[in-house]
Amino acid sequence: MNNFSVHILGSSAAVPSLERSCSGQLVTCNNRNILIDCGEGTQLQLRKFNLSIQRINTILISHLHGDHFFGLFGLLGTMSLLGRTSGIDIYGPPELQNILEVIFNASQTRLDFPFTFHAIVGEEKQLLFEDAGLRIFAFPLRHRIKTYGFQVEEKFQRFPLDKRKLELHEVSNEHRKLLAEGCDFQRMDGSWLRYEEFTLPQPDARCYAYCSDTMPFKALTKYLEGTTTLYHEATFLKDRKKRANETFHSTAEDAGLQALNAGVKQLLIGHYSSRYTSILELEEEAKQVFPNATAVKDGDFFGIL
Amino acid sequence: MNNFSVHILGSSAAVPSLERSCSGQLVTCNNRNILIDCGEGTQLQLRKFNLSIQRINTILISHLHGDHFFGLFGLLGTMSLLGRTSGIDIYGPPELQNILEVIFNASQTRLDFPFTFHAIVGEEKQLLFEDAGLRIFAFPLRHRIKTYGFQVEEKFQRFPLDKRKLELHEVSNEHRKLLAEGCDFQRMDGSWLRYEEFTLPQPDARCYAYCSDTMPFKALTKYLEGTTTLYHEATFLKDRKKRANETFHSTAEDAGLQALNAGVKQLLIGHYSSRYTSILELEEEAKQVFPNATAVKDGDFFGIL
Repeated sequence: MNNFSVHILGSSAAVPSLERSCSGQLVTCNNRNILIDCGEGTQLQLRKFNLSIQRINTILISHLHGDHFFGLFGLLGTMSLLGRTSGIDIYGPPELQNILEVIFNASQTRLDFPFTFHAIVGEEKQLLFEDAGLRIFAFPLRHRIKTYGFQVEEKFQRFPLDKRKLELHEVSNEHRKLLAEGCDFQRMDGSWLRYEEFTLPQPDARCYAYCSDTMPFKALTKYLEGTTTLYHEATFLKDRKKRANETFHSTAEDAGLQALNAGVKQLLIGHYSSRYTSILELEEEAKQVFPNATAVKDGDFFGIL
Repeated sequence: MNNFSVHILGSSAAVPSLERSCSGQLVTCNNRNILIDCGEGTQLQLRKFNLSIQRINTILISHLHGDHFFGLFGLLGTMSLLGRTSGIDIYGPPELQNILEVIFNASQTRLDFPFTFHAIVGEEKQLLFEDAGLRIFAFPLRHRIKTYGFQVEEKFQRFPLDKRKLELHEVSNEHRKLLAEGCDFQRMDGSWLRYEEFTLPQPDARCYAYCSDTMPFKALTKYLEGTTTLYHEATFLKDRKKRANETFHSTAEDAGLQALNAGVKQLLIGHYSSRYTSILELEEEAKQVFPNATAVKDGDFFGIL
């Protein structure tokens, strides 16, 4: 089983508190460490939860409301001051590149590591990145300004082996490794070992989706296809549905319905308005619609189902 | 006695920690609340120490290294989201205006309160602001990029009364008030009461100066004239004087010497490099030169002497 998890760094909407930092999550999948959003204070949240800032190699910024990216400048600065040399890829709205340039020019800061900015544009779901261990997609959300959600989907680098069959044919450990990697090969006696005969089908790939900030909209269910664990914003309770609509946000019930429609296994909700000092009611409301729902707290850690 | 104090919000140099936030101080003088510098996390430090963000009416930014201003965008955003309507004056390097515009344009954020940006330029000490209760000056420091220090000087709105004399002349409470405000006036019997005869000389004005970030330089002593409490950066211990010079910073000894040369009553040091987990040695080093020195911690509160 690949490692695939999410650490919640911040669960607050626009106004942070001492208990809830602004949006930020660290997703680890097949040893790639992806920071999704980076509100003010994210670098300290990473420190607080003992997560290495230097191992982050990909940053995804959903949109340019401050609570989702005001921590990016300080994080990059600290990475550089602490001696980072390895590169980083940042994906976000096109204007972010100009903002980074203006800010780092003004401070005459030169980051001592290479970073590549990739502008996210377009109105459709798109593949942002792929390597041997994962795929990252972006898809449009519906918010006051241009906003994207993200999907991180694991890829399998090895096939599960059919141990019974391997023992029957006395396949060596070395050869088992080749078969697991999907290689066919010939033995000394001239016989062929085909990986398809000695391996089991791949399990279904797990897929984590991040949807913050958005109001509900129909196409989202299609974008979420394949998602197994969904993080969905739940800024308000349903008694404030009108306010949610006005601000292009969702209620906890909306998040539950989206999880249901997308057929996921697990729902995480967050991005709570500062009016809610307790999040119990938000969780209850989501559970009414989708029982395996959890209202996340800063510092929470979840394995992706 | 006027109220005149400083709350330390952050005492860290460029790399913050969970114990030390980036630079920020709240100076209160005659009911004006002045935020000096605003590193990342300042809005949460204000909250942590129970200080009202909405009472801040003046913000001074010393320079555009991130640890001195990356918290400004979030602070202004939160002020607006929490319903601020009263205006605010921001003083800082000219490029800051463009940065604020670029960031708030990208997020399509409209601050719901008036704010006025005042660019600080020039190579000499200058008066930034004056009202009935205080004067604020800026003066150049010597750092890698253009940097200013600040002085906040109290002004007296009333003269101390000579009570013995007032009793002797049977001056009414109403008339005492006028005399304390510096008014001369005629009594019903035609005689004149002159405020100079019934009041005592003003006490010496207290003056707080903020010097971060800077290496030592000769003209600073002149700029600091009149200062009674000095905050001076002490990024390093003197065994790292070479590093301090290379980075245009000061040692704790430098801070002590500057306090001595400027003839202040109290020295506060801060802006410590993250290499120092304990600040005892920094305080000791400053005290060797200037005994009334304190190494500040986040959350500390000092009356201005």
